[in-house]
Formats: sequence, structure tokens, C-alpha cells
Amino acid sequence: MNSTRDIEALIDVMARLPGLGPRSARRAVLHLIRKRALLMQPLADLMGQVALTARECLNCGNVGTTEICDICTSAKRANGQICVVEDVADLWAMERGHAFKGRYHVLGGTLSALDQVGPEQLRIPRLIDRVSEEAISEVILALNATVDGQTTAHYIADQLEGRVTLSSLAQGVPIGGELDYLDDGTIAAALNARKTF
Amino acid sequence: MNSTRDIEALIDVMARLPGLGPRSARRAVLHLIRKRALLMQPLADLMGQVALTARECLNCGNVGTTEICDICTSAKRANGQICVVEDVADLWAMERGHAFKGRYHVLGGTLSALDQVGPEQLRIPRLIDRVSEEAISEVILALNATVDGQTTAHYIADQLEGRVTLSSLAQGVPIGGELDYLDDGTIAAALNARKTF
Repeated sequence: MNSTRDIEALIDVMARLPGLGPRSARRAVLHLIRKRALLMQPLADLMGQVALTARECLNCGNVGTTEICDICTSAKRANGQICVVEDVADLWAMERGHAFKGRYHVLGGTLSALDQVGPEQLRIPRLIDRVSEEAISEVILALNATVDGQTTAHYIADQLEGRVTLSSLAQGVPIGGELDYLDDGTIAAALNARKTF
Repeated sequence: MNSTRDIEALIDVMARLPGLGPRSARRAVLHLIRKRALLMQPLADLMGQVALTARECLNCGNVGTTEICDICTSAKRANGQICVVEDVADLWAMERGHAFKGRYHVLGGTLSALDQVGPEQLRIPRLIDRVSEEAISEVILALNATVDGQTTAHYIADQLEGRVTLSSLAQGVPIGGELDYLDDGTIAAALNARKTF
């Protein structure tokens, strides 16, 4: 069908987004076409705008629309703490927690010999530079509790040993979590890290 | 965060698409930002293009980029058959089946007294006009097997009684379907409509 070529191309591209497949992309595109003035045109404009302006912060790797992101430029966030995360999604998750008041360092992945990801690819030298440049007193390693994440955390801890306080997120029972549904490792970790009243 | 306002607005709009929520919209937007040259810019351009050009066919209600859609303008599809469907998604599903060679009529919903949807809102008068204008011999009612769909099918059948052959899709066991997983109604319908060898 000739006159629907653009619509089919749009469905194909939408189907490449994570979380969408061919069927849900068709559904989303039909929904967009039905609301083309109210939803589709604003979405297209916003997406074009972000595609032009989005960039990674040269200091920490966060995503924003300026060379240095808001968190790195904010004097309020210069409290001597850096929280090291794997990914921008993890940074956003930490920000939603509203508990951390310092700055971030986004690695963009984990060390992996198989995929040839070394410290250079993960901005680890930049992290070490930042520790002295920004007078950092504590580095919080908020890496995922996976084998790769923990390997990377140990590597960074080795590099910074003796220069700053190193910490990692506490492991234990999640808020609202039921013991019956937790894995054995989490229960053991929570018991070992138990707190006295 | 000021410099990420566009990114947050984009996530909010993406989260309004069917099949996406706030979490999957964040994931999709991060994926798009990572591939902004290869994926995000083309997607934004295509979406803007479709938002400008997409329209409903004045004859059948199909979605396309011209006033009268390809199927309605194609002489090959003028075989005297019209397939009546509820929605453009159903038309696309029929087209994927590659079995129907005639034209379509998209109602855009089903009759519903509660929602004040009458025949006028569903292009039913236009369907009745088309039957004489396009020398239609058979109308296939491919409406969903729901109460509303079947009510609408009966209403259209009443209107066209005696003027054309009326038919509906066969009901039975889906290809690859296992009896054990089928509902009782489908098994009963398949048994009643059994074919002799």
C-alpha cells in the first residue's frame, strides 16, 4: 500500500523501542493517529527537540540538555559525596528516592572482559580525577547486586582505597516486602546486617 | 531539574501511549536518547510526517494519507464484496490474513445506547449508500464476537436484508488451538458448525 508507507514505516520504527513489539506498536500508532492533533504532533515535536538537544554531561555522564548537567552545576549538591551508578536509569531511580543530596557518577555499564569493557570505557579515570577535583570525602557504590556490578564495585574500591570513605547500599528486606516471597540470599543478608533497638 | 524539562515532558507524553506506563516510557526514552541520531531523529520526523498527512478515508473510514484510501481506489478490489469491521486495527488484521480481496467499511465502534452511539456515528448510512453505488453483492460482517459487536451486526443485517447476501466469519477452533484451552462456547459453536468430510 503506497499511501500508507509512512504509517507502516512508523510502526516498524516504534516496534524497535524496548517494551513494544509489532502488535503493541500498531496499537500505539493507531492511538496516535486518532489523536494526531492533541498527542501525535506534540510528541513528534518534543522528540525532535530532545533528539537535537539531549547530551551526556561531560562531568558525570548524566543525560541532560546542557554540557554539564544540573546536578553537577548545582552548588547545593557539592556536599562531598559521589554516588556511583551503572546507568542513567539508576540515577533517576536514586533521585526519585529523594534521599541522596550529593552528586552522581554514571559508569554507563560494568567491567566485562568478554565484552572488552575496561575502566576507560566506564569513566573510572574521570571518577578518580573528580575525587580530588571536587574535594570528595565519600564515594557510595550504588551498583546493581549482580556479579558484574559487584566486580566493578570492588575494582573501584581498590582504586580509591585510603583516599575517601567507601560505602555501598545496605542489603536487606525491601519496604513492604514479605519474608515468604524473598530469596534466601536476601534473608541471610538482612539477618547478618540486623540492627539492635 | 531545569535542563531536563524536555526529557521529562517527553516521558510524560510517551507514558500516555497504550501499552506504556511511566516505567516503560522512561526506559523507551533512555533508549531513544542513547540512539538519538539513528533512531530518535528518524522516529520524530516520521511521526511529524504522519501527524500531518494521516487522515480517514472519506469512503470507508480506513486510515491512510489520501482522501480516498488505496483499497477504495484500487479497481482490483472492486469484486462486489464489502467486509464490515469495527476498527482500523481489525481491517489491518484482515489484510494480514491475505484472504479477503474486496473492500472494507470501518464502523469506528459499535452501537451503544449508553454511550449514545447510533447508526449515524458508525457510518452505517454511508454503508447502505455504498451497497448500491458500488454494486455490492455480498456484505461480510466481521464484527467482534462480543454482545455489542453482535448487536451491531444484527442491526446492519436488518437494514440490508434482501438487498445483498449477508455473511459473517465462521466460529470454531482457531488454527493451532488446543481443545483443552478453549472456552465451552467456542467448542459448542465448533461442534454445531462441524463439517462432513
